[in-house]
Amino acid sequence: MSFSPLIRHLIDSLRILPGVGQKTAQRMALHLLERDRSGALRLAQALTQAMEGVGHCKTCRTLSEDELCPQCSDPRRDDSLLCIVEGPMDVHAVEQTGYRGRYFVLKGHLSPLDGLGPEAIGIPELLTRVEAGSFSEVILATNPTVEGEATAHYIAQMLANKGLITSRIAHGMPLGGELELVDGGTLAHALAGRRPISL
Amino acid sequence: MSFSPLIRHLIDSLRILPGVGQKTAQRMALHLLERDRSGALRLAQALTQAMEGVGHCKTCRTLSEDELCPQCSDPRRDDSLLCIVEGPMDVHAVEQTGYRGRYFVLKGHLSPLDGLGPEAIGIPELLTRVEAGSFSEVILATNPTVEGEATAHYIAQMLANKGLITSRIAHGMPLGGELELVDGGTLAHALAGRRPISL
Ligand SMILES: [Zn+2]
Ligand SMILES: [Zn+2]
Repeated sequence: MSFSPLIRHLIDSLRILPGVGQKTAQRMALHLLERDRSGALRLAQALTQAMEGVGHCKTCRTLSEDELCPQCSDPRRDDSLLCIVEGPMDVHAVEQTGYRGRYFVLKGHLSPLDGLGPEAIGIPELLTRVEAGSFSEVILATNPTVEGEATAHYIAQMLANKGLITSRIAHGMPLGGELELVDGGTLAHALAGRRPISL
Repeated sequence: MSFSPLIRHLIDSLRILPGVGQKTAQRMALHLLERDRSGALRLAQALTQAMEGVGHCKTCRTLSEDELCPQCSDPRRDDSLLCIVEGPMDVHAVEQTGYRGRYFVLKGHLSPLDGLGPEAIGIPELLTRVEAGSFSEVILATNPTVEGEATAHYIAQMLANKGLITSRIAHGMPLGGELELVDGGTLAHALAGRRPISL
């Protein structure tokens, strides 16, 4: 027990961050205490403000403290295109490709083994969104994993009789990979190479 | 700008953590918002409490919110041994070896090019500590870098006429390395193989 209680508590608390183990947490805690206390206090405030203030965009369901996120409140975007992704990080990834249509953000993917069915991931809200919009094409940009494919297929079937083009991003990216980890160029090609889903 | 302002601010704030770049900060922010808001609020509180509450042990100068740190307040430790290190993380590293003497924690090492002389790193306080104690041996456990060696040599010269054994941890560890990055076994050997400094 070489650290005093408040420092030990800070080290333990830092371990909630993804990818941060005991040794990294120790280095972070001592770095902040020795070299950047004002930065650490600003981080504490930013954490509190974000956790208490950020909810979900009422239109696309991405994370946002405003009723409408930056993508939904921008009047210059293409209202005929809807891109469906598994999470907020994927919106960021698709934005890097230059896509300027609209979004709908699922809460992950269908996962029957974990008890995550259509309601759990926001499919009813997606249907409401599609019916309220004037989209000509819906782009299914769920991850190219088994679950992401199944989710895309499920949505394509659900939208089959709506008079829409339903497309799937091309498999330019490695199978089993995650959208948010792929480089922008690869994702841009995958987006450009999208093709209609044949049921 | 695909993230709302509070999320962007959180991402920027997370980048003060050592080793955390833009992409890692994004993943951390969204992970906390989507999966662990209560953990993030606890982290915010731990940061605030630590930054506002933690000062320095009045005896060894390591980080501590109490007047005396765990090592200085423990009556069972060996009062005849003093181990001098460059920072609080090094106390933690030396503790892992089983060492149970006392410590003095410098503020880094002498660095004339950066204007860091003896006063800046706490040498006067070290002298006060040595004169107030009843040590028979002072172990110089500064890093085995050029600056750490120079700092150890400076302190050894300063203590030359105090009737103390002044020892230097053995170079079992790679030259140019840092104490806190070495494994415990290597550091334990280095500590066991310490030898008197011949001036
Ligand atoms: Zn939105
Ligand atoms: Zn102490």
